[in-house]
Amino acid sequence: MDSLLIRNARLDGQLVDILVEGGVYKEIGPDVGVSAERVLDAGGKPIVPPFYNMHTHAAMSLMRGYADDMELFKWLNEYIWPAERDISPEDVYHGTRLAILEMIRTGSIFFNDMYWYPDVALQAVEEMGVRAALGRFIIEESPGRIHRLNIEANNSLEKAYERSVVRDRVFLTWSPHAIYTVSEATLRRIGEQAMATGEHINIHASETIREVEDALKKYGMSPIAWLDKCGVLGPKTVLAHCVHLSEADIKLIRERGATVVHMPVSNAKLGSGNFNYRKVVELGGCNFTIGTDGNASNNNLSMFDEVKAAALVAKLTTGDPACGKDDALWKAATRGGAQAFGINGGIIAEGAVADALLIDASNVLMVPEHYLVANMVYSADSSCVDTVICGGRVLMEGRRIDGEADIIAGARERAQRLDRIQL
Amino acid sequence: MDSLLIRNARLDGQLVDILVEGGVYKEIGPDVGVSAERVLDAGGKPIVPPFYNMHTHAAMSLMRGYADDMELFKWLNEYIWPAERDISPEDVYHGTRLAILEMIRTGSIFFNDMYWYPDVALQAVEEMGVRAALGRFIIEESPGRIHRLNIEANNSLEKAYERSVVRDRVFLTWSPHAIYTVSEATLRRIGEQAMATGEHINIHASETIREVEDALKKYGMSPIAWLDKCGVLGPKTVLAHCVHLSEADIKLIRERGATVVHMPVSNAKLGSGNFNYRKVVELGGCNFTIGTDGNASNNNLSMFDEVKAAALVAKLTTGDPACGKDDALWKAATRGGAQAFGINGGIIAEGAVADALLIDASNVLMVPEHYLVANMVYSADSSCVDTVICGGRVLMEGRRIDGEADIIAGARERAQRLDRIQL
Repeated sequence: MDSLLIRNARLDGQLVDILVEGGVYKEIGPDVGVSAERVLDAGGKPIVPPFYNMHTHAAMSLMRGYADDMELFKWLNEYIWPAERDISPEDVYHGTRLAILEMIRTGSIFFNDMYWYPDVALQAVEEMGVRAALGRFIIEESPGRIHRLNIEANNSLEKAYERSVVRDRVFLTWSPHAIYTVSEATLRRIGEQAMATGEHINIHASETIREVEDALKKYGMSPIAWLDKCGVLGPKTVLAHCVHLSEADIKLIRERGATVVHMPVSNAKLGSGNFNYRKVVELGGCNFTIGTDGNASNNNLSMFDEVKAAALVAKLTTGDPACGKDDALWKAATRGGAQAFGINGGIIAEGAVADALLIDASNVLMVPEHYLVANMVYSADSSCVDTVICGGRVLMEGRRIDGEADIIAGARERAQRLDRIQL
Repeated sequence: MDSLLIRNARLDGQLVDILVEGGVYKEIGPDVGVSAERVLDAGGKPIVPPFYNMHTHAAMSLMRGYADDMELFKWLNEYIWPAERDISPEDVYHGTRLAILEMIRTGSIFFNDMYWYPDVALQAVEEMGVRAALGRFIIEESPGRIHRLNIEANNSLEKAYERSVVRDRVFLTWSPHAIYTVSEATLRRIGEQAMATGEHINIHASETIREVEDALKKYGMSPIAWLDKCGVLGPKTVLAHCVHLSEADIKLIRERGATVVHMPVSNAKLGSGNFNYRKVVELGGCNFTIGTDGNASNNNLSMFDEVKAAALVAKLTTGDPACGKDDALWKAATRGGAQAFGINGGIIAEGAVADALLIDASNVLMVPEHYLVANMVYSADSSCVDTVICGGRVLMEGRRIDGEADIIAGARERAQRLDRIQL
């Protein structure tokens, strides 16, 4: 059985040794007194849970900085969708590898992805050692008619997943794009299938005012109520954005046990509106998690930027500096995300999966350390992440990642092609 | 004469050599064909202007994460002011060194500082090679009676400055704290003295609604109008925060040629209110610059976080994704700040002062590079800064800074003392 011994890690102010066996924390104590196949000396560095990035379009990393600062439909119609029309499996492979590299460097070991060619994304995930929820992406060409590329790629994804050796860290979801791109009949079928297999459903919901107004006009109810009516709102449903929720929506999400993914950077950057932190989190008590969205609308996958933005936007939109507290956001970005996908992670404790970061406490952004969580939420950036561990595998050590130069070179080449076609 | 040759730097897409003499860019071209006392191979890295951080309380870095997420007056009365009551020159020395270290790592080579014991801050600035505007800090114990510590430290600052060998990169300002802590008579005297010496005035202005309401009640006019009436609003006046400006305020600031410092992170974190980006910048055309504020209310000095927050807050508060453009914010945070202090910097051009960053274009946050400025504003963090140059002096090279461990150790020791006294 694979084993890892992490020596001299600082956990809650104490120096401890940590034994990992089979990807799980087996023993944590002042001196566990055994050895392991691999020993890692943490040198007194704090060990903290990593981030779980709850909403991405990983391969869109090829479009980082491709089009910014413009009105949403101009951005979509003139830049993003034309660029995506020609996207190839090779683009998705290299773009997803770039995204995973960035997530590891910025302290995330899990991402919940929705994009074209998820079968190819699976290959990138297998190679790079992180956890992922990969969506059977579904968008319709016309009502009831699923996009040909989705059908092919989702079939290919199923087959590849069946023979994959990393099913302990990758699972498949049903990822219909949104209520305005997927019909009632298809949503109903997805709801039934997900129920039968126990898999998660991952969908954009209530991102813009226009989406809400259109739903009210077309269905006589909000997007959240419509999802419920179509049988896709349950305890394994993950709702991306949720910028425009009524009180009834919040109550319904809470009653169904669904999970909200807050993406303050993307919501601000695209002018989507003000997420109601107070009502959804502090008063509503919905399952609340954090994600970055894709790099076309962020423009990075750093959960450090995201938790800081979440705290600031909560305070800014309420005028209350006590709204959006560091502890709550840190928990939402770590254990909250893990729990939403049934992963016993986001916590450094015996029995939990061995996902962790070793933090460079001597990085100037971490000094002084009056309170570690405040430093992580408000001050740290990727330069503070020294070592990244996922299920006991060391993905980055001392800021070195195997094969990084190849990943960068591959992504650059694909992005150049994008430039040639589009700009 | 000191000279530096930077070889193989990428400037606007071209590889160039750059000769620096006497702290100024002397020659920039494909091959300048001379050598210099020091040669630095940029290895093709992009060369860009550094940040000019337009408002700090540098030594408050000792209070990073000391008290967060609470109501403004609780934060001030129960945490910040009690901690500051015991602050010593040694605290300011080590806290300022920590702040400068952080600013260098995060790409800033200038800061406009207002804090206790500026004479001691001068020593830190002399040692660490950056540019600074250091304020004769003025706060009154009672109307007309300047704080004893201010008088002593400002006298000591004057003397130390007179014999300083770094007057090419450090200048003194008049830094009255605010209109609610400094009386009319003192403001008038400061206005006259600054006029006589040609020095800048640096003051907090219109940070909170309460400040504006109190001014209207007490003086029958806004804080900005009051500053004008007291003779301290001119082309060398730097106004920190300016969250609550009327249209008349904006017009007055523009007419006087004063400079606004926007600090979106601090303003959001303290719940100060919504800076009107559209009116001040896009419609008003005031001199617009960016600062971080101190680390007690941010909690870092990274201008990367600040420019991204400025763009996002502009979009969020207007609902318009085209408001707050990357080019405008990048310019405000670089050349805008330099110009406000009469520094011919923030630009890589012959004749300008040789302030620059070499950027690690292979850092995953910079890949791909569809547009360098978009990557700098929306994606980069401190890990992307490879080398920092200020007036031709290399302050950081390949992410190494001389004496870093000592600075960290000194700051930690002072911060521990703060913990013992206060928490």
